[in-house]
Amino acid sequence: MRMTRYFLPLLKEVPSDAQIASHQLMMRAGMIRQAAAGIYSWLPLGLRVMQKIERIVVEEQTRAGHLPMLMPTLQPATLWEESGRYSDYGEEMLRITDRHDRKLLYGPTNEEMITDIFREHVHSYRDLPLTLFHVQWKFRDEIRPRYGVMRGREFLMKDGYNFDVDQDEAIHAYNRHMVSYLRTYERLGLQAIPMRADTGPIGGNHSHEFLVLASTGESRVHYDAAILDLKLKDAAIDYDSHDRCAAVVAEWTTPYARTEETHDATVFADRVPAGRRVESRAIEVGQIFYFGTKYSEVMGATVTNAAGQSVPVHMGSHGIGVSRLVGAIIEAHHDDRGIRWPLSVAPFQVGLVNLAHNDTGCRTTCEQLYRELAGLGLEVLYDDRDESPGAQFASMTLIGLPWMVAVGPRSLAGGEVEFTERASGIRSSHPHETAARHLADRIGLPPV
Amino acid sequence: MRMTRYFLPLLKEVPSDAQIASHQLMMRAGMIRQAAAGIYSWLPLGLRVMQKIERIVVEEQTRAGHLPMLMPTLQPATLWEESGRYSDYGEEMLRITDRHDRKLLYGPTNEEMITDIFREHVHSYRDLPLTLFHVQWKFRDEIRPRYGVMRGREFLMKDGYNFDVDQDEAIHAYNRHMVSYLRTYERLGLQAIPMRADTGPIGGNHSHEFLVLASTGESRVHYDAAILDLKLKDAAIDYDSHDRCAAVVAEWTTPYARTEETHDATVFADRVPAGRRVESRAIEVGQIFYFGTKYSEVMGATVTNAAGQSVPVHMGSHGIGVSRLVGAIIEAHHDDRGIRWPLSVAPFQVGLVNLAHNDTGCRTTCEQLYRELAGLGLEVLYDDRDESPGAQFASMTLIGLPWMVAVGPRSLAGGEVEFTERASGIRSSHPHETAARHLADRIGLPPV
Repeated sequence: MRMTRYFLPLLKEVPSDAQIASHQLMMRAGMIRQAAAGIYSWLPLGLRVMQKIERIVVEEQTRAGHLPMLMPTLQPATLWEESGRYSDYGEEMLRITDRHDRKLLYGPTNEEMITDIFREHVHSYRDLPLTLFHVQWKFRDEIRPRYGVMRGREFLMKDGYNFDVDQDEAIHAYNRHMVSYLRTYERLGLQAIPMRADTGPIGGNHSHEFLVLASTGESRVHYDAAILDLKLKDAAIDYDSHDRCAAVVAEWTTPYARTEETHDATVFADRVPAGRRVESRAIEVGQIFYFGTKYSEVMGATVTNAAGQSVPVHMGSHGIGVSRLVGAIIEAHHDDRGIRWPLSVAPFQVGLVNLAHNDTGCRTTCEQLYRELAGLGLEVLYDDRDESPGAQFASMTLIGLPWMVAVGPRSLAGGEVEFTERASGIRSSHPHETAARHLADRIGLPPV
Repeated sequence: MRMTRYFLPLLKEVPSDAQIASHQLMMRAGMIRQAAAGIYSWLPLGLRVMQKIERIVVEEQTRAGHLPMLMPTLQPATLWEESGRYSDYGEEMLRITDRHDRKLLYGPTNEEMITDIFREHVHSYRDLPLTLFHVQWKFRDEIRPRYGVMRGREFLMKDGYNFDVDQDEAIHAYNRHMVSYLRTYERLGLQAIPMRADTGPIGGNHSHEFLVLASTGESRVHYDAAILDLKLKDAAIDYDSHDRCAAVVAEWTTPYARTEETHDATVFADRVPAGRRVESRAIEVGQIFYFGTKYSEVMGATVTNAAGQSVPVHMGSHGIGVSRLVGAIIEAHHDDRGIRWPLSVAPFQVGLVNLAHNDTGCRTTCEQLYRELAGLGLEVLYDDRDESPGAQFASMTLIGLPWMVAVGPRSLAGGEVEFTERASGIRSSHPHETAARHLADRIGLPPV
């Protein structure tokens, strides 16, 4: 993409209401624009990141055998009256009346609606296990929206719902979700720690939150530093294996790690050596729940089990905040000059900078490199604006693409162009003829 | 995908409120479920189709140089008060009040919001031309939602907005949109005719609707049959060329084609030979508008032109109904036994049917073919349910995948499996060892 043809409104000033780094950087990098309190438009650069996150989330859910569908944003109030949550949910629920005076609401979550779909169509244990998920906009009318997309009112969330014939199967679904979530966060470049958590308005008695450590986080957490050494990496996981999933869950939930709500100082002191006890702030980026038959009983979602009995189905729900993750990733990956995107979610992998717009050699080389890099399958943002080198470097550093390739008359006289890796700041020179292929190799793209 | 692991609730009964073929077939094929009047959940099969349509729409907009972004579903009323449309829009606008008594609305369209983004960030003709688009859920509180997703209340739409320094440039943007829309509809397997149209509440004086001929359409149209011979095919279009785009538009808008609102019987009779005059019903699947400075003037969206003067920017808006297209494509492609998906939007390209579940040879061959077809990049729905051959054939025919591969003991004794092409109904036999590659070739997939 050529910058002269892109819409990338970089801001020089930090907006006064932006208190945390991710909010400031998303505004400055032209990723979002506020439409109303807690409601944002995603400008082209921001949308690219959010869509990459969404794709990884969907891929990992699909890999775990979960099925994508899509429920609407608006829901009839009647469903929530059935579960009893219409009156319970409080002022965070955005209640709406249509032209025929029918009560609707903007879904803050979808337990009722998915249970309604299930009870209509599924009646036998033979059709289980079943996990359905969707990635859809939700609305929670926060009294004080803040921190940009981190605590917005309209937000994009992946929420999934498992249906199982009994508690054993439902716990396997719970474990499957934990494994798929851990894998998702790793691919996003995040270290997310599962922590035992309260269940809140969703209900049930078995829940973990996933927290990313960040000094700006709203949650206070307590954990055993040993958990930071755990990595899933590319470990092959058979999601059908109860034992395999349970083993991963055991590994990740054995070290002490709890939010303020479930923290027990005595247990913490007893079980964790002093040198490994950490208290920190963190950002919640997902939560999983097993709540048994809470919704299925009141809404009549039953199946016939192998013994021919009609039993209420066991359920859980599992959420990842997709739009919030954009902010959380920035909180975990930035410095005082700008964002440092992990490769997997970078809006473009490479920034190409022409340092001398009036120099024919530089222009020709840039055009050539732009074609070559794109031909190798790399996503390139090409700064072809007539700006000073300093302004161009500052823009690229702010936007935070993993690699920058700069073409200037001095290096080019020696046949070279200059690479800068954003994460390390390391610069290196390479012959311009092989620069594109070299970068593709560094990034790990296969030969075309 | 194995059917035993899929969520595909096929219905035997046609729901009584489903009046037209697409609504009946989408319900019977387990594609959607109604959540409230005019509000639908998209079950896994339906979502696959809608996402394929969305992908084609986005690809063609991107090819035309238009930039993807995403505006929220909810908008502040203040923006619509600026344009004067908050009071004008009528009861189709879903008005909402939040917990702080601020007025919001569920966006039925986005002229105000995009103009607000533009005026904040763009101030010079040097940043033009600019076209931004998004694919987002909209809401129009139809007094009588009907025809399933064809006239729903919550619907998915691609809407794009061009910003240009003067009328000439804006007309080029209009032409670019018409060309990209024609290409989009062709890829979707639709013959969509551009027809001169009224502008309605969007405003302006230059608009075309795109209509797909269908006896169930809500629009009455009048056209010269000669227009049905026009095809874009793979014609390379330079979207930067004013002349090239204008030539395509001239070709497609010269034959008489108008909706009831703009129809002129005298002109029709004068200009079109009697044998080519057709009156028909049709479904609107898109509309483009040029409305000049209607919004930019009242909202103060100005740019400095080359002469240094501040001028209101020229705009247009351009919409394609993505969720509606799912229904429109079915209206154009079905028979009395079910859907017949065009390859480009089929939820799966191939249905694989095991006609004898207790036969080891059939089961082994099916498993083998399933792996081979997937390995070649084909999307396969594998009916591994223990159902009768008749029920399996009926299901596959209803769902309407372009190709069915049936494995039965009789053919397999001769080393063969049976192909059925859904569109033509033609059956043929092929050796099972080469069946997967043969099908990939028929579908046009490159060698792996």
